[in-house]
Amino acid sequence: MSGEDVVVLAGGTGGAKLVRGMADVVEPERLAAIANPGDDIEIYGAHVSPDPDLVSFWLADLIDPRGWGLAGDTFAVMDALRALGVEVWFNLGDRDLAWCLERARLVAEGATATAALARLNAAIGVRARVLPACDERLRTFVRTSSGWHSFQEFMIREQAEPAVEGLEFRGAEQARPTREVLEAIAAARVVFIGPSNPLASIGPMLGVPALREALARCDAPVVAVSPIVGGEVLKGPTAAFMKYARLPCDAGGVARFYEGLLDGMVADEALPDPHLPALQIDTRMDDAPSRARVAAQTLAFARELAARKGKR
Amino acid sequence: MSGEDVVVLAGGTGGAKLVRGMADVVEPERLAAIANPGDDIEIYGAHVSPDPDLVSFWLADLIDPRGWGLAGDTFAVMDALRALGVEVWFNLGDRDLAWCLERARLVAEGATATAALARLNAAIGVRARVLPACDERLRTFVRTSSGWHSFQEFMIREQAEPAVEGLEFRGAEQARPTREVLEAIAAARVVFIGPSNPLASIGPMLGVPALREALARCDAPVVAVSPIVGGEVLKGPTAAFMKYARLPCDAGGVARFYEGLLDGMVADEALPDPHLPALQIDTRMDDAPSRARVAAQTLAFARELAARKGKR
Repeated sequence: MSGEDVVVLAGGTGGAKLVRGMADVVEPERLAAIANPGDDIEIYGAHVSPDPDLVSFWLADLIDPRGWGLAGDTFAVMDALRALGVEVWFNLGDRDLAWCLERARLVAEGATATAALARLNAAIGVRARVLPACDERLRTFVRTSSGWHSFQEFMIREQAEPAVEGLEFRGAEQARPTREVLEAIAAARVVFIGPSNPLASIGPMLGVPALREALARCDAPVVAVSPIVGGEVLKGPTAAFMKYARLPCDAGGVARFYEGLLDGMVADEALPDPHLPALQIDTRMDDAPSRARVAAQTLAFARELAARKGKR
Repeated sequence: MSGEDVVVLAGGTGGAKLVRGMADVVEPERLAAIANPGDDIEIYGAHVSPDPDLVSFWLADLIDPRGWGLAGDTFAVMDALRALGVEVWFNLGDRDLAWCLERARLVAEGATATAALARLNAAIGVRARVLPACDERLRTFVRTSSGWHSFQEFMIREQAEPAVEGLEFRGAEQARPTREVLEAIAAARVVFIGPSNPLASIGPMLGVPALREALARCDAPVVAVSPIVGGEVLKGPTAAFMKYARLPCDAGGVARFYEGLLDGMVADEALPDPHLPALQIDTRMDDAPSRARVAAQTLAFARELAARKGKR
């Protein structure tokens, strides 16, 4: 177990898996995940926060094998809504709904999203911090030929199929990173940007000006792990967004998107930029040992960079 | 099947059972229940409306044998909330929650409570009308030695045990009966006040000035069915409220509470007031045949009163 403070910026499944791997090699109290609140959605009277919750459920080993939600969850409420004639486009398990209803209740009572998630995580035994990037409302919207859609609508109703014609992080400019996020970055010995969709999952967080600035200026090395594995995106519509941004869908394209932030890059392919330190490893994280291995290897690489960066 | 228009004012279980019995002897399209919205509660992101829903679930033959909620409902969400450390004082089944979440969504979208319930009832095949007395916010509060409580808190958290020291129908003075309620009363050939708690379940509706007035002035006879059976209250804290109102807990006390409204009374005991027409029958409604019998007998009695009232 490493005693240094580690921060991981996480969007969807890839980022959450890296956080879970890190929890095997870093003391949980010194591990903080900064998670994307841009996919949040208010529905069924609940506050659903897909990306932060993915991280929490992965950390608690409660993630369902389907890739989202709680393992073995039932769907009685969704089934009942369908029986009432409701078009249920956003599926949420019963225990997941309870989790999201309780978050909504805590927030309605005055808690920040950060505090509400901390309380929920304490109840399932998560000891690492899972920190929404900001407590203000920040929402990712995607434009396709049929208009603007919230991120969940784009992913589920549109099945992420149409070409991406626009991307907005509404509220990002006005948002501030939370105190907890800034403290985690300030204390970090290494900062990782997880293998999540750079534009749609990490992008909303980088759209918060003071968060981007904190990353650009932080003493710790910032190391991105490429979400592109074997030339392909393992999960989600990263390719469509890279195409929208006119970036090649490879580690070089990811590095270009993060330009000005990175001290290093981890990918399963060679990087075109000789000036950016790179670690080439197998980045698949299909099981617990591979997640821990990727975490350990990226951590060792980042430590070297920290020594070179020489600011601590 | 009777082709005349029948209205039943219903509070809790007694009223709902009478409505269910009426559905066996009156064409459902001509049956309207006016139900108490004073016990409504916003919780779990949902709008729970216990008294109107009791009537709906009884009419759909979906009432659970426990006396509330949907038959065979599961409690995955409540169990999950408990697992998260939430003190779940108000129990709600998963299908019941879906029902109440959908009502909240419809109302948030701009539907009236009346229209939302009509839509939900259509989905479960209820053909009679179930009409909240008003669409405005009306809430029953009960004062005990420990202070003011919402009706659900008094019933569940306080277990309806402390002496009743105060009773308020907040919002009643400002509320108006809905158009649907006024039309139902105007069209009614007979109006029943169901065997529900006169003060706490019927009282909130009578606290709406224009509703009380519509009942006092309506052409149809108004007949109350006493909730006191065999000298006892079958369900709920009627005795505590009658005591608070300094009324005897018998049919005479009920008749006195409804003074100025009644053309007749149905009870299993003799009435002290010789000027109020009364029907003495077995008013227990423990099974479907007895519910239909009580409905048929009270309807026949009310028809006689209608002929005597002679206004139609």
